Amino acid sequence: MERIKLTLEYDGTNFCGYQVQPNKRTVQAELEKALYSIYNMEVITYASGRTDAGVHALGAVVHYDEPKEIKNKRVADSINAFLPDDVKVVKAERVGSDFDARFSAKRKTYAYKFYLSRTERPLYNNKALRVNEEVDVCKMKEACKYLIGEFDFTSFVARKSGKTNFVREIYSADIIQTGEKEFEFRICGNGFLYNMVRIIMGTLIDIGKGLKLPRDMKCVIDGKNRALSGKTMPPYALYLLNVEY
Amino acid sequence: MERIKLTLEYDGTNFCGYQVQPNKRTVQAELEKALYSIYNMEVITYASGRTDAGVHALGAVVHYDEPKEIKNKRVADSINAFLPDDVKVVKAERVGSDFDARFSAKRKTYAYKFYLSRTERPLYNNKALRVNEEVDVCKMKEACKYLIGEFDFTSFVARKSGKTNFVREIYSADIIQTGEKEFEFRICGNGFLYNMVRIIMGTLIDIGKGLKLPRDMKCVIDGKNRALSGKTMPPYALYLLNVEY
Repeated sequence: MERIKLTLEYDGTNFCGYQVQPNKRTVQAELEKALYSIYNMEVITYASGRTDAGVHALGAVVHYDEPKEIKNKRVADSINAFLPDDVKVVKAERVGSDFDARFSAKRKTYAYKFYLSRTERPLYNNKALRVNEEVDVCKMKEACKYLIGEFDFTSFVARKSGKTNFVREIYSADIIQTGEKEFEFRICGNGFLYNMVRIIMGTLIDIGKGLKLPRDMKCVIDGKNRALSGKTMPPYALYLLNVEY
Repeated sequence: MERIKLTLEYDGTNFCGYQVQPNKRTVQAELEKALYSIYNMEVITYASGRTDAGVHALGAVVHYDEPKEIKNKRVADSINAFLPDDVKVVKAERVGSDFDARFSAKRKTYAYKFYLSRTERPLYNNKALRVNEEVDVCKMKEACKYLIGEFDFTSFVARKSGKTNFVREIYSADIIQTGEKEFEFRICGNGFLYNMVRIIMGTLIDIGKGLKLPRDMKCVIDGKNRALSGKTMPPYALYLLNVEY
Protein backbone atom coordinates (compact mmCIF):
# COMPACT_ATOMS: atom_id res chain seq x y z
CA MET A 1 0.00 0.00 0.00
CA GLU A 2 1.58 3.22 -1.11
CA ARG A 3 0.79 6.81 -0.29
CA ILE A 4 0.13 9.05 -3.28
CA LYS A 5 0.50 12.82 -3.37
CA LEU A 6 -1.63 14.56 -5.98
CA THR A 7 -1.28 18.13 -7.17
CA LEU A 8 -4.58 19.46 -8.52
CA GLU A 9 -5.55 22.37 -10.72
CA TYR A 10 -9.18 23.41 -10.76
CA ASP A 11 -11.45 26.15 -11.99
CA GLY A 12 -13.61 26.80 -8.93
CA THR A 13 -16.44 28.52 -10.85
CA ASN A 14 -18.80 25.55 -10.94
CA PHE A 15 -17.79 23.93 -7.66
CA CYS A 16 -19.37 24.50 -4.25
CA GLY A 17 -15.85 24.61 -2.85
CA TYR A 18 -13.34 21.87 -2.20
CA GLN A 19 -14.83 19.81 0.60
CA VAL A 20 -17.53 17.14 0.26
CA GLN A 21 -21.03 18.39 1.09
CA PRO A 22 -24.27 16.45 0.66
CA ASN A 23 -25.90 17.02 -2.75
CA LYS A 24 -23.32 19.59 -3.84
CA ARG A 25 -20.75 19.43 -6.60
CA THR A 26 -17.36 19.71 -4.91
CA VAL A 27 -13.77 19.07 -5.98
CA GLN A 28 -13.25 16.39 -3.33
CA ALA A 29 -16.44 14.56 -4.36
CA GLU A 30 -15.34 14.53 -8.03
CA LEU A 31 -11.88 13.31 -7.08
CA GLU A 32 -13.19 10.53 -4.81
CA LYS A 33 -15.66 9.48 -7.50
CA ALA A 34 -12.76 9.19 -9.98
CA LEU A 35 -10.69 7.20 -7.47
CA TYR A 36 -13.65 4.89 -6.88
CA SER A 37 -13.81 4.23 -10.62
CA ILE A 38 -10.15 3.28 -10.71
CA TYR A 39 -9.80 1.20 -7.55
CA ASN A 40 -13.35 -0.09 -7.46
CA MET A 41 -13.62 0.80 -3.79
CA GLU A 42 -13.95 3.91 -1.66
CA VAL A 43 -10.76 5.90 -1.20
CA ILE A 44 -10.46 8.58 1.47
CA THR A 45 -8.47 11.66 0.45
CA TYR A 46 -6.80 14.24 2.68
CA ALA A 47 -6.28 17.79 1.40
CA SER A 48 -3.80 20.52 2.28
CA GLY A 49 -6.84 22.64 3.06
CA ARG A 50 -10.26 23.57 1.74
CA THR A 51 -11.09 26.33 -0.65
CA ASP A 52 -14.45 28.10 -0.75
CA ALA A 53 -17.00 28.03 -3.55
CA GLY A 54 -15.61 29.90 -6.56
CA VAL A 55 -11.95 29.84 -5.45
CA HIS A 56 -9.50 28.39 -7.96
CA ALA A 57 -6.33 26.33 -7.50
CA LEU A 58 -3.21 25.90 -9.57
CA GLY A 59 -1.50 23.61 -7.07
CA ALA A 60 -3.78 22.21 -4.37
CA VAL A 61 -2.31 19.11 -2.71
CA VAL A 62 -4.12 15.94 -1.64
CA HIS A 63 -2.88 12.58 -0.38
CA TYR A 64 -4.42 9.12 -0.16
CA ASP A 65 -3.32 5.57 0.41
CA GLU A 66 -3.67 3.27 -2.56
CA PRO A 67 -6.04 0.45 -1.59
CA LYS A 68 -4.39 -1.72 -4.25
CA GLU A 69 -1.93 -1.28 -7.05
CA ILE A 70 -3.36 -0.21 -10.36
CA LYS A 71 -2.05 -1.67 -13.58
CA ASN A 72 -1.58 1.58 -15.46
CA LYS A 73 1.52 3.10 -13.86
CA ARG A 74 0.59 6.65 -14.91
CA VAL A 75 -1.61 7.42 -11.91
CA ALA A 76 -2.29 11.00 -13.04
CA ASP A 77 -3.55 9.91 -16.49
CA SER A 78 -5.72 7.18 -14.96
CA ILE A 79 -7.41 9.61 -12.58
CA ASN A 80 -7.74 12.36 -15.19
CA ALA A 81 -9.65 10.02 -17.48
CA PHE A 82 -12.44 10.01 -14.87
CA LEU A 83 -12.30 13.67 -13.86
CA PRO A 84 -14.42 16.44 -15.43
CA ASP A 85 -12.78 19.24 -17.45
CA ASP A 86 -12.66 21.72 -14.58
CA VAL A 87 -10.41 19.68 -12.28
CA LYS A 88 -7.31 17.73 -13.25
CA VAL A 89 -4.34 16.07 -11.57
CA VAL A 90 -1.28 17.93 -12.82
CA LYS A 91 1.16 15.73 -10.91
CA ALA A 92 1.02 12.41 -9.03
CA GLU A 93 3.94 11.22 -6.89
CA ARG A 94 4.56 8.27 -4.60
CA VAL A 95 5.53 9.58 -1.16
CA GLY A 96 6.48 8.10 2.21
CA SER A 97 3.76 7.14 4.68
CA ASP A 98 4.84 10.03 6.93
CA PHE A 99 3.73 12.56 4.31
CA ASP A 100 0.49 14.32 5.17
CA ALA A 101 -1.00 16.85 2.75
CA ARG A 102 -2.32 18.95 5.61
CA PHE A 103 0.07 18.50 8.52
CA SER A 104 3.32 18.36 6.57
CA ALA A 105 2.54 21.64 4.76
CA LYS A 106 5.14 24.33 5.49
CA ARG A 107 4.12 27.22 3.24
CA LYS A 108 1.12 28.12 1.13
CA THR A 109 0.96 30.80 -1.53
CA TYR A 110 -2.21 32.50 -2.70
CA ALA A 111 -2.80 35.06 -5.44
CA TYR A 112 -5.71 37.47 -5.67
CA LYS A 113 -6.07 38.78 -9.22
CA PHE A 114 -7.47 42.19 -10.11
CA TYR A 115 -7.57 44.61 -13.02
CA LEU A 116 -8.23 48.32 -13.31
CA SER A 117 -11.16 49.26 -15.52
CA ARG A 118 -14.34 51.33 -15.61
CA THR A 119 -16.06 48.35 -17.26
CA GLU A 120 -16.37 44.69 -16.36
CA ARG A 121 -14.11 42.70 -18.69
CA PRO A 122 -15.75 39.59 -20.20
CA LEU A 123 -12.50 37.63 -20.40
CA TYR A 124 -12.05 38.03 -16.63
CA ASN A 125 -15.55 36.90 -15.64
CA ASN A 126 -15.20 34.70 -12.54
CA LYS A 127 -11.42 34.99 -12.81
CA ALA A 128 -10.32 38.42 -11.53
CA LEU A 129 -11.80 41.36 -9.64
CA ARG A 130 -12.53 44.65 -11.39
CA VAL A 131 -11.25 47.67 -9.49
CA ASN A 132 -11.85 51.26 -10.48
CA GLU A 133 -9.00 52.96 -12.29
CA GLU A 134 -8.64 55.64 -9.61
CA VAL A 135 -7.10 53.12 -7.22
CA ASP A 136 -3.44 53.80 -6.34
CA VAL A 137 -1.67 50.46 -6.70
CA CYS A 138 1.62 51.89 -5.35
CA LYS A 139 -0.05 52.55 -2.02
CA MET A 140 -1.41 49.01 -1.95
CA LYS A 141 2.10 47.74 -2.66
CA GLU A 142 3.51 49.86 0.15
CA ALA A 143 0.90 48.50 2.60
CA CYS A 144 1.93 44.91 1.82
CA LYS A 145 5.20 45.20 3.71
CA TYR A 146 3.35 45.59 7.03
CA LEU A 147 1.89 42.12 6.54
CA ILE A 148 5.27 40.38 6.58
CA GLY A 149 6.16 38.75 9.90
CA GLU A 150 4.48 36.77 12.66
CA PHE A 151 1.29 38.44 13.88
CA ASP A 152 -2.07 37.74 15.42
CA PHE A 153 -4.37 38.15 12.41
CA THR A 154 -7.64 38.39 14.39
CA SER A 155 -8.53 41.51 12.36
CA PHE A 156 -8.60 39.40 9.20
CA VAL A 157 -10.64 36.42 10.24
CA ALA A 158 -14.30 35.86 9.34
CA ARG A 159 -16.42 35.95 12.47
CA LYS A 160 -17.81 32.49 11.87
CA SER A 161 -14.38 30.86 12.03
CA GLY A 162 -14.10 28.27 14.82
CA LYS A 163 -10.34 28.65 15.30
CA THR A 164 -8.85 30.08 18.51
CA ASN A 165 -5.22 30.62 17.56
CA PHE A 166 -4.97 33.49 15.10
CA VAL A 167 -1.19 33.80 14.96
CA ARG A 168 0.27 33.16 11.52
CA GLU A 169 3.59 33.97 9.90
CA ILE A 170 3.64 35.72 6.54
CA TYR A 171 6.88 35.23 4.59
CA SER A 172 6.12 37.46 1.65
CA ALA A 173 3.34 39.74 0.42
CA ASP A 174 3.42 41.97 -2.63
CA ILE A 175 1.47 43.37 -5.56
CA ILE A 176 2.80 42.15 -8.90
CA GLN A 177 1.94 43.74 -12.24
CA THR A 178 1.04 41.00 -14.73
CA GLY A 179 -0.29 43.09 -17.61
CA GLU A 180 -0.92 46.67 -18.66
CA LYS A 181 -3.75 47.09 -16.13
CA GLU A 182 -3.62 43.66 -14.53
CA PHE A 183 -2.18 42.88 -11.14
CA GLU A 184 -2.08 40.21 -8.52
CA PHE A 185 -1.66 40.38 -4.78
CA ARG A 186 0.55 37.44 -3.87
CA ILE A 187 0.97 36.24 -0.31
CA CYS A 188 2.95 33.35 1.15
CA GLY A 189 2.68 32.18 4.75
CA ASN A 190 2.76 29.18 7.07
CA GLY A 191 -1.03 29.13 7.13
CA PHE A 192 -4.12 31.25 6.55
CA LEU A 193 -7.28 31.84 8.56
CA TYR A 194 -10.77 31.54 7.11
CA ASN A 195 -11.29 34.32 4.51
CA MET A 196 -7.99 35.90 5.55
CA VAL A 197 -6.65 36.63 2.05
CA ARG A 198 -9.99 38.02 0.90
CA ILE A 199 -10.24 40.34 3.94
CA ILE A 200 -6.63 41.51 3.52
CA MET A 201 -7.49 42.24 -0.11
CA GLY A 202 -10.51 44.33 0.95
CA THR A 203 -8.23 46.29 3.28
CA LEU A 204 -5.65 46.81 0.52
CA ILE A 205 -8.37 48.16 -1.77
CA ASP A 206 -9.47 50.64 0.92
CA ILE A 207 -5.84 51.77 1.05
CA GLY A 208 -5.68 52.03 -2.75
CA LYS A 209 -8.81 54.18 -2.69
CA GLY A 210 -7.28 56.49 -0.08
CA LEU A 211 -9.79 55.53 2.64
CA LYS A 212 -6.84 54.36 4.73
CA LEU A 213 -3.11 55.06 4.59
CA PRO A 214 -0.57 52.33 3.77
CA ARG A 215 0.79 52.39 7.33
CA ASP A 216 -2.75 51.91 8.69
CA MET A 217 -2.28 48.25 7.75
CA LYS A 218 -0.09 48.00 10.86
CA CYS A 219 -2.79 49.58 13.05
CA VAL A 220 -5.40 47.19 11.63
CA ILE A 221 -3.20 44.20 12.52
CA ASP A 222 -2.35 45.58 15.99
CA GLY A 223 -6.00 46.37 16.74
CA LYS A 224 -7.01 42.65 16.56
CA ASN A 225 -10.53 43.61 15.61
CA ARG A 226 -12.43 42.57 12.49
CA ALA A 227 -14.23 45.93 12.46
CA LEU A 228 -10.95 47.68 11.56
CA SER A 229 -10.24 45.78 8.33
CA GLY A 230 -11.94 46.01 4.93
CA LYS A 231 -14.69 44.02 3.26
CA THR A 232 -14.32 40.35 2.36
CA MET A 233 -13.58 40.44 -1.37
CA PRO A 234 -15.35 37.91 -3.64
CA PRO A 235 -13.94 34.37 -4.00
CA TYR A 236 -13.68 34.13 -7.81
CA ALA A 237 -10.43 36.13 -8.02
CA LEU A 238 -8.59 34.00 -5.43
CA TYR A 239 -6.14 31.27 -6.47
CA LEU A 240 -4.31 28.76 -4.30
CA LEU A 241 -1.00 28.81 -6.18
CA ASN A 242 0.97 26.14 -4.34
CA VAL A 243 1.66 24.31 -1.10
CA GLU A 244 5.25 23.66 -0.10
CA TYR A 245 6.44 20.79 2.12
CA MET B 1 -26.64 62.01 -36.44
CA GLU B 2 -23.24 60.97 -35.25
CA ARG B 3 -21.10 57.97 -36.02
CA ILE B 4 -20.00 55.93 -33.03
CA LYS B 5 -16.97 53.65 -32.90
CA LEU B 6 -17.21 50.88 -30.31
CA THR B 7 -14.36 48.70 -29.07
CA LEU B 8 -15.65 45.35 -27.78
CA GLU B 9 -14.22 42.66 -25.57
CA TYR B 10 -15.90 39.27 -25.62
CA ASP B 11 -15.46 35.73 -24.42
CA GLY B 12 -16.36 33.73 -27.52
CA THR B 13 -17.06 30.46 -25.67
CA ASN B 14 -20.84 30.72 -25.68
CA PHE B 15 -21.26 32.60 -28.95
CA CYS B 16 -21.80 31.11 -32.40
CA GLY B 17 -19.31 33.63 -33.69
CA TYR B 18 -19.61 37.35 -34.31
CA GLN B 19 -22.06 37.67 -37.18
CA VAL B 20 -25.86 37.49 -36.95
CA GLN B 21 -27.28 34.07 -37.87
CA PRO B 22 -30.89 32.99 -37.53
CA ASN B 23 -31.68 31.36 -34.15
CA LYS B 24 -28.08 31.52 -32.96
CA ARG B 25 -26.55 33.48 -30.13
CA THR B 26 -24.00 35.81 -31.74
CA VAL B 27 -22.07 38.88 -30.58
CA GLN B 28 -23.62 41.10 -33.25
CA ALA B 29 -27.15 39.97 -32.32
CA GLU B 30 -26.54 40.76 -28.62
CA LEU B 31 -25.08 44.14 -29.51
CA GLU B 32 -27.93 45.09 -31.85
CA LYS B 33 -30.46 43.95 -29.23
CA ALA B 34 -28.79 46.25 -26.69
CA LEU B 35 -28.80 49.15 -29.17
CA TYR B 36 -32.48 48.55 -29.87
CA SER B 37 -33.19 48.83 -26.14
CA ILE B 38 -31.41 52.16 -25.96
CA TYR B 39 -32.62 53.86 -29.14
CA ASN B 40 -35.98 52.11 -29.35
CA MET B 41 -35.38 51.36 -33.01
CA GLU B 42 -33.26 49.05 -35.11
CA VAL B 43 -29.62 50.04 -35.47
CA ILE B 44 -27.37 48.48 -38.08
CA THR B 45 -23.78 47.86 -36.97
CA TYR B 46 -20.68 47.39 -39.11
CA ALA B 47 -17.77 45.34 -37.78
CA SER B 48 -14.06 45.35 -38.57
CA GLY B 49 -14.52 41.68 -39.41
CA ARG B 50 -16.16 38.51 -38.14
CA THR B 51 -14.76 36.01 -35.73
CA ASP B 52 -15.73 32.34 -35.71
CA ALA B 53 -17.57 30.48 -32.98
CA GLY B 54 -15.35 30.20 -29.91
CA VAL B 55 -12.90 32.94 -30.93
CA HIS B 56 -12.38 35.72 -28.35
CA ALA B 57 -11.73 39.44 -28.77
CA LEU B 58 -10.01 42.00 -26.62
CA GLY B 59 -10.48 44.83 -29.10
CA ALA B 60 -12.98 44.14 -31.88
CA VAL B 61 -14.22 47.33 -33.54
CA VAL B 62 -17.73 48.17 -34.70
CA HIS B 63 -19.34 51.37 -35.96
CA TYR B 64 -22.92 52.55 -36.26
CA ASP B 65 -24.77 55.79 -36.85
CA GLU B 66 -26.79 57.05 -33.92
CA PRO B 67 -30.44 57.22 -35.02
CA LYS B 68 -31.00 59.85 -32.33
CA GLU B 69 -29.10 61.33 -29.44
CA ILE B 70 -29.39 59.51 -26.17
CA LYS B 71 -29.68 61.43 -22.93
CA ASN B 72 -27.02 59.55 -21.01
CA LYS B 73 -23.77 60.84 -22.49
CA ARG B 74 -21.80 57.74 -21.43
CA VAL B 75 -22.63 55.65 -24.48
CA ALA B 76 -20.48 52.71 -23.30
CA ASP B 77 -22.21 52.48 -19.92
CA SER B 78 -25.66 52.74 -21.53
CA ILE B 79 -24.95 49.89 -23.93
CA ASN B 80 -23.21 47.75 -21.30
CA ALA B 81 -26.29 47.89 -19.09
CA PHE B 82 -28.11 45.89 -21.78
CA LEU B 83 -25.29 43.52 -22.74
CA PRO B 84 -24.71 40.07 -21.19
CA ASP B 85 -21.61 39.37 -19.08
CA ASP B 86 -19.62 37.81 -21.92
CA VAL B 87 -19.53 40.87 -24.19
CA LYS B 88 -18.91 44.48 -23.15
CA VAL B 89 -18.08 47.79 -24.78
CA VAL B 90 -14.67 48.77 -23.41
CA LYS B 91 -14.61 52.08 -25.29
CA ALA B 92 -17.08 54.24 -27.21
CA GLU B 93 -15.94 57.22 -29.29
CA ARG B 94 -17.62 59.70 -31.60
CA VAL B 95 -15.90 59.58 -34.99
CA GLY B 96 -16.24 61.33 -38.34
CA SER B 97 -18.71 60.01 -40.92
CA ASP B 98 -15.79 58.85 -43.07
CA PHE B 99 -14.76 56.30 -40.47
CA ASP B 100 -15.61 52.73 -41.42
CA ALA B 101 -14.83 49.90 -38.99
CA ARG B 102 -14.09 47.55 -41.87
CA PHE B 103 -12.73 49.65 -44.72
CA SER B 104 -10.69 52.10 -42.67
CA ALA B 105 -8.86 49.30 -40.84
CA LYS B 106 -5.09 49.41 -41.46
CA ARG B 107 -3.73 46.66 -39.22
CA LYS B 108 -5.13 43.82 -37.17
CA THR B 109 -3.36 41.87 -34.47
CA TYR B 110 -4.28 38.36 -33.37
CA ALA B 111 -2.88 36.17 -30.62
CA TYR B 112 -3.06 32.39 -30.44
CA LYS B 113 -2.44 31.19 -26.88
CA PHE B 114 -0.91 27.84 -25.98
CA TYR B 115 0.73 26.11 -23.04
CA LEU B 116 3.01 23.12 -22.74
CA SER B 117 1.65 20.30 -20.59
CA ARG B 118 1.04 16.55 -20.55
CA THR B 119 -2.37 17.28 -19.01
CA GLU B 120 -5.25 19.55 -19.96
CA ARG B 121 -5.23 22.52 -17.57
CA PRO B 122 -8.68 23.40 -16.16
CA LEU B 123 -7.93 27.11 -15.90
CA TYR B 124 -7.24 27.20 -19.65
CA ASN B 125 -10.42 25.41 -20.74
CA ASN B 126 -11.71 27.18 -23.86
CA LYS B 127 -8.95 29.78 -23.49
CA ALA B 128 -5.66 28.28 -24.68
CA LEU B 129 -4.41 25.22 -26.59
CA ARG B 130 -2.56 22.44 -24.81
CA VAL B 131 0.59 21.38 -26.64
CA ASN B 132 2.81 18.49 -25.61
CA GLU B 133 5.94 19.42 -23.71
CA GLU B 134 8.23 17.91 -26.34
CA VAL B 135 7.49 20.77 -28.73
CA ASP B 136 10.48 23.02 -29.50
CA VAL B 137 9.21 26.57 -29.12
CA CYS B 138 12.51 28.05 -30.36
CA LYS B 139 11.98 26.41 -33.75
CA MET B 140 8.46 27.80 -33.90
CA LYS B 141 9.86 31.25 -33.10
CA GLU B 142 12.46 30.88 -35.84
CA ALA B 143 9.77 29.91 -38.38
CA CYS B 144 7.78 33.07 -37.62
CA LYS B 145 10.25 35.32 -39.41
CA TYR B 146 9.39 33.71 -42.79
CA LEU B 147 5.84 34.99 -42.38
CA ILE B 148 6.84 38.65 -42.35
CA GLY B 149 6.36 40.45 -45.67
CA GLU B 150 3.83 40.59 -48.49
CA PHE B 151 2.91 37.12 -49.76
CA ASP B 152 0.17 35.13 -51.40
CA PHE B 153 -1.16 33.14 -48.45
CA THR B 154 -3.13 30.59 -50.49
CA SER B 155 -1.50 27.80 -48.47
CA PHE B 156 -3.18 29.12 -45.34
CA VAL B 157 -6.73 29.63 -46.48
CA ALA B 158 -9.64 27.32 -45.68
CA ARG B 159 -10.93 25.71 -48.87
CA LYS B 160 -14.44 27.04 -48.33
CA SER B 161 -13.33 30.67 -48.44
CA GLY B 162 -14.96 32.69 -51.22
CA LYS B 163 -12.11 35.19 -51.62
CA THR B 164 -9.97 35.35 -54.76
CA ASN B 165 -7.14 37.65 -53.71
CA PHE B 166 -4.92 35.86 -51.22
CA VAL B 167 -2.13 38.45 -50.97
CA ARG B 168 -1.73 39.91 -47.49
CA GLU B 169 1.08 41.79 -45.79
CA ILE B 170 2.31 40.61 -42.41
CA TYR B 171 4.08 43.31 -40.38
CA SER B 172 5.14 41.20 -37.42
CA ALA B 173 4.89 37.60 -36.25
CA ASP B 174 6.50 36.12 -33.17
CA ILE B 175 6.13 33.69 -30.27
CA ILE B 176 6.04 35.45 -26.91
CA GLN B 177 6.52 33.70 -23.59
CA THR B 178 3.85 34.87 -21.17
CA GLY B 179 4.41 32.45 -18.28
CA GLU B 180 6.58 29.54 -17.20
CA LYS B 181 5.03 27.21 -19.79
CA GLU B 182 2.65 29.64 -21.44
CA PHE B 183 3.15 31.26 -24.80
CA GLU B 184 1.33 33.16 -27.46
CA PHE B 185 1.84 33.41 -31.18
CA ARG B 186 1.20 37.04 -32.06
CA ILE B 187 0.71 38.20 -35.62
CA CYS B 188 -0.05 41.63 -37.07
CA GLY B 189 -1.00 42.28 -40.68
CA ASN B 190 -3.09 44.38 -43.03
CA GLY B 191 -5.69 41.60 -43.19
CA PHE B 192 -6.23 37.90 -42.68
CA LEU B 193 -7.87 35.19 -44.77
CA TYR B 194 -10.49 32.81 -43.44
CA ASN B 195 -8.86 30.53 -40.79
CA MET B 196 -5.43 31.90 -41.74
CA VAL B 197 -4.09 32.36 -38.20
CA ARG B 198 -5.37 28.94 -37.13
CA ILE B 199 -3.74 27.23 -40.13
CA ILE B 200 -0.45 29.08 -39.60
CA MET B 201 -0.59 27.92 -35.98
CA GLY B 202 -1.07 24.30 -37.09
CA THR B 203 1.98 24.68 -39.33
CA LEU B 204 4.03 26.19 -36.50
CA ILE B 205 3.12 23.24 -34.26
CA ASP B 206 4.27 20.80 -36.95
CA ILE B 207 7.56 22.71 -36.98
CA GLY B 208 7.75 22.62 -33.17
CA LYS B 209 7.22 18.85 -33.29
CA GLY B 210 10.03 18.45 -35.83
CA LEU B 211 7.71 17.29 -38.64
CA LYS B 212 8.89 20.27 -40.66
CA LEU B 213 11.95 22.55 -40.41
CA PRO B 214 11.61 26.25 -39.54
CA ARG B 215 12.69 27.24 -43.06
CA ASP B 216 9.97 24.99 -44.51
CA MET B 217 7.57 27.80 -43.62
CA LYS B 218 8.94 29.63 -46.66
CA CYS B 219 8.33 26.59 -48.90
CA VAL B 220 4.80 26.25 -47.59
CA ILE B 221 4.09 29.90 -48.45
CA ASP B 222 5.77 29.66 -51.87
CA GLY B 223 3.89 26.43 -52.72
CA LYS B 224 0.49 28.19 -52.60
CA ASN B 225 -1.20 24.93 -51.75
CA ARG B 226 -3.36 24.21 -48.69
CA ALA B 227 -2.10 20.62 -48.66
CA LEU B 228 1.38 21.84 -47.65
CA SER B 229 0.37 23.60 -44.44
CA GLY B 230 -0.69 22.15 -41.09
CA LYS B 231 -4.07 21.46 -39.52
CA THR B 232 -6.54 24.19 -38.65
CA MET B 233 -6.07 24.63 -34.91
CA PRO B 234 -9.20 25.01 -32.72
CA PRO B 235 -10.87 28.43 -32.36
CA TYR B 236 -10.98 28.75 -28.55
CA ALA B 237 -7.31 29.79 -28.22
CA LEU B 238 -7.54 32.61 -30.78
CA TYR B 239 -7.94 36.26 -29.73
CA LEU B 240 -8.48 39.33 -31.88
CA LEU B 241 -6.27 41.71 -29.90
CA ASN B 242 -6.86 44.99 -31.72
CA VAL B 243 -7.65 46.76 -34.95
CA GLU B 244 -5.67 49.85 -35.88
CA TYR B 245 -6.91 52.71 -38.10
